[in-house]
Amino acid sequence: MSPISLALPHVAKLHAYTPGLQPTGPGWVKLNTNECPYPPSPKVAEAIRREVGEDGAALRLYPNPRSASLRSAVAALHGGGLTEANVCIGNGSDDILNLLVRAFCTSTAAAGFTLPSYSLYPVLVEIQDGRTDVIPFDRSMRLPVERIASSGARAFFLTSPNAPTGVAFRNAEIAAVLESFRGLLVVDEAYAPFADEDAVPLLSRHPRLVIVRTLSKAYALAGLRVGYALADPGIIEVLDRVRDSYNVNRLSQAAAVAALGDVPYYAGVVAKVRATRDRFLRYLVERRGWFTYPSAANFIFTEPRGAGGGSGPAVAKSAYDFLYARNVLVRYFPSHALTASFLRISVGTDQEMQVLSDTLDAWQKAPNA
Amino acid sequence: MSPISLALPHVAKLHAYTPGLQPTGPGWVKLNTNECPYPPSPKVAEAIRREVGEDGAALRLYPNPRSASLRSAVAALHGGGLTEANVCIGNGSDDILNLLVRAFCTSTAAAGFTLPSYSLYPVLVEIQDGRTDVIPFDRSMRLPVERIASSGARAFFLTSPNAPTGVAFRNAEIAAVLESFRGLLVVDEAYAPFADEDAVPLLSRHPRLVIVRTLSKAYALAGLRVGYALADPGIIEVLDRVRDSYNVNRLSQAAAVAALGDVPYYAGVVAKVRATRDRFLRYLVERRGWFTYPSAANFIFTEPRGAGGGSGPAVAKSAYDFLYARNVLVRYFPSHALTASFLRISVGTDQEMQVLSDTLDAWQKAPNA
Repeated sequence: MSPISLALPHVAKLHAYTPGLQPTGPGWVKLNTNECPYPPSPKVAEAIRREVGEDGAALRLYPNPRSASLRSAVAALHGGGLTEANVCIGNGSDDILNLLVRAFCTSTAAAGFTLPSYSLYPVLVEIQDGRTDVIPFDRSMRLPVERIASSGARAFFLTSPNAPTGVAFRNAEIAAVLESFRGLLVVDEAYAPFADEDAVPLLSRHPRLVIVRTLSKAYALAGLRVGYALADPGIIEVLDRVRDSYNVNRLSQAAAVAALGDVPYYAGVVAKVRATRDRFLRYLVERRGWFTYPSAANFIFTEPRGAGGGSGPAVAKSAYDFLYARNVLVRYFPSHALTASFLRISVGTDQEMQVLSDTLDAWQKAPNA
Repeated sequence: MSPISLALPHVAKLHAYTPGLQPTGPGWVKLNTNECPYPPSPKVAEAIRREVGEDGAALRLYPNPRSASLRSAVAALHGGGLTEANVCIGNGSDDILNLLVRAFCTSTAAAGFTLPSYSLYPVLVEIQDGRTDVIPFDRSMRLPVERIASSGARAFFLTSPNAPTGVAFRNAEIAAVLESFRGLLVVDEAYAPFADEDAVPLLSRHPRLVIVRTLSKAYALAGLRVGYALADPGIIEVLDRVRDSYNVNRLSQAAAVAALGDVPYYAGVVAKVRATRDRFLRYLVERRGWFTYPSAANFIFTEPRGAGGGSGPAVAKSAYDFLYARNVLVRYFPSHALTASFLRISVGTDQEMQVLSDTLDAWQKAPNA
């Protein structure tokens, strides 16, 4: 008997999440996985060197199982009466999302999410053989508040700002969902540091709200895997029961505490990314005339037009392929009608965005554009 | 409605795994979680410093999602025809165990394990609301081959050398299980580098064998969270579907590759730990007359005798408390008849073992011993 046939039936047929390409060679303009174009705070490298010491002796010991100092640092950063009891730390925010699915969702308790949104949610639900409740957007990308409220999902995952569109939902809309929806509302705020508003102030009045954050984007620490949840202490306690006891290693804990402590540095990083984003977005809309959603994130979702002025999946694919062949990586989501005509472009440095525009110019002059 | 009531019923009632105490202050003789008493290879600190660079810029990028270099390094280390396709990397071996439970075990496909063994297994199964099939040892700690073979478990988790006893099972016994047992046999070899034999040579003939390893013990990297599975490529592919796409961070990947490459350094570490272990074991048996299982691991499982010569749970508890009050941490497992009269003592440096013996001397002279 083949050993694979021993796997659970739903596992034997499931498909893994497809992460964006992570090329290993040099020479790429990498605008495909929404990493920060600037390095982390210098305090991060210092903190890692301090934890490693001369000979790495501290690494022989297990990390703090609760990431206790990091929980305190997160609570202090957000203020508003939050304490360590409101914080759970994950090995990336994907770890937190996984814990939420495992603790709240199953074949009889659906996980809800919008389409499009972060494409990991359905994968996490499939791994648990769970049921999904998918609420589609229309092209306006306006939040379907009533449909979420009446969805009957045990937990609803809302990405805000949304991926891959970059569209942020207002606290007034999120509060409206919380008033009427009866389940757990998970607001996945991976990109909230780049937005004008975040949902943290809603936590004190809404015990069924969970906010998920990552240090992979605004904190330039995708390589270290740190994310967290902010929620009612009862929810945090549930996540801790399901969580691996040593899920975050020593260096990631030390680095994350140092990063969260350097508020002025990251205010500068976020300001630079926002300025580049807003400039590039205006350029796409005003100079090229491409339909582009307003972005509150560190990426832009735009509908390319070919040389003849047309748009559509074939045009987007042509632009993607042209860029890829010239070592410019962006992201293309062909599998859904609302995304297949678009490209998602991470905000890089001004220089990277210039390379991108030049390459798009060349594409529009190419015979097949 | 309380937000906790939204959690799945089995999650609402489950108990988290209790990790060993990880004291944060200095001054402890820490012999409770089987960490390596020596630092990792100097190449580990070098590799981390190289990956961090001057300003930590590499940390802004996602890690390799497959830990590809580390898979190659693991395959090369074990040889015997193993390739990258036989290796899956985890965020600690606990991550691998969790993936195995999630992919193979559920309420109708039992997870089997012996009692005692690694106490995380039942916790992982409970989190999945799965069924367990528990095969108890008797005090001989001999492997109940027939009972495992006829257990009907979909996957059976065998810790070898076993925890907390230190007793290793021979490849002949493991092969006998594989001949008759119809499910997946997971041999958790966290402590195998300290033993005379390991089950890796059985892999080529047994596609239903999975071997799980960690870098937390023999490689002195508990703080970095790296473990791996060796198995048939079909099994590895299943684990990859369930695995988080970026489960191992950049620094852990770089450090682990460096560690696995420094074979001479770790041969020295293992030889020192084994020498201290064997000396301390003889001392306990010959000088103190304490019943002690033969250990093939980096810890010793011994049944303390009090001043009056008696043993039992109260005696073990008295020794544990006396040691704890004097900043010597060992592990005590009161919840099972076969373990409650024993202490599990990690093998430390010779100096730490001397402090331990001196403190045990003082305990035996104390009025309540």
